[in-house]
Amino acid sequence: MTTSTDKNQHIYQLRELIKDIGCSMLTTVDEDGSLHSRPMEKSSDIQPDGTLWFFTNASSHKVFEIEHRQQVNLSFSSPNQKRYVSVSGSAELVQDRNKMQELWKPELQAWFPQGLNEPDIALLKVQINKVDYWDSQANFAAQTISL
Amino acid sequence: MTTSTDKNQHIYQLRELIKDIGCSMLTTVDEDGSLHSRPMEKSSDIQPDGTLWFFTNASSHKVFEIEHRQQVNLSFSSPNQKRYVSVSGSAELVQDRNKMQELWKPELQAWFPQGLNEPDIALLKVQINKVDYWDSQANFAAQTISL
Repeated sequence: MTTSTDKNQHIYQLRELIKDIGCSMLTTVDEDGSLHSRPMEKSSDIQPDGTLWFFTNASSHKVFEIEHRQQVNLSFSSPNQKRYVSVSGSAELVQDRNKMQELWKPELQAWFPQGLNEPDIALLKVQINKVDYWDSQANFAAQTISL
Repeated sequence: MTTSTDKNQHIYQLRELIKDIGCSMLTTVDEDGSLHSRPMEKSSDIQPDGTLWFFTNASSHKVFEIEHRQQVNLSFSSPNQKRYVSVSGSAELVQDRNKMQELWKPELQAWFPQGLNEPDIALLKVQINKVDYWDSQANFAAQTISL
């Protein structure tokens, strides 16, 4: 059983693991079963409820894929630190202007040049279920964190 | 239609994109539909037939997943170059000692301390179908290469 104290510790541990890795690759499954990934700049730290949030275009193909199949993977790679993190979770589209204003940060301008004025801008919320990670400190043996 | 000259050019282009990124994240789908990824050190450049090869343990869970569902994604991230590459393909296990000897390189020792003497060592062959990439040169607009 995962207690709430365990969960808080696990979220803290995961936050530390990915804090220096701004951009992850989000993998989704398409209608024909093929797997696609694309870079996603995280818009905040992991929230206390174990969610990660990203800005997206609401009409993008990945949103179509997620509406048909919620399960996704986020991979965080830091070649310099030799650290690799796999986050398994489920994703959903959230169109909430207040949440967007709360999460917006200037680094996202590279992907959304008009910022919050982009006509199609929305949020993707990923509920984290399981994390596996590998780094040189643990001699590349797989470590697991369950939320 | 993709001609063989096109294919050669596309393979060359992809090789250039990922030549400085040794370690990718391989995403597979588990029986319950959840998506997992793990780091995979590429053992060679992309082959002329559009395949990428990796060393693996034959009894690892990812091999079990691939036997049930061949479609995978490989993501290559280079935060320093601001380059992100998604490779969609299908994977299969190959247990061929000659091919292993051909592909072995010392950098793989971090993952396989006993080298080719690891009792469970085998190869994973990924046939590449489609590549999407993003980099700062193209202002992060998605670019696609079909093989």
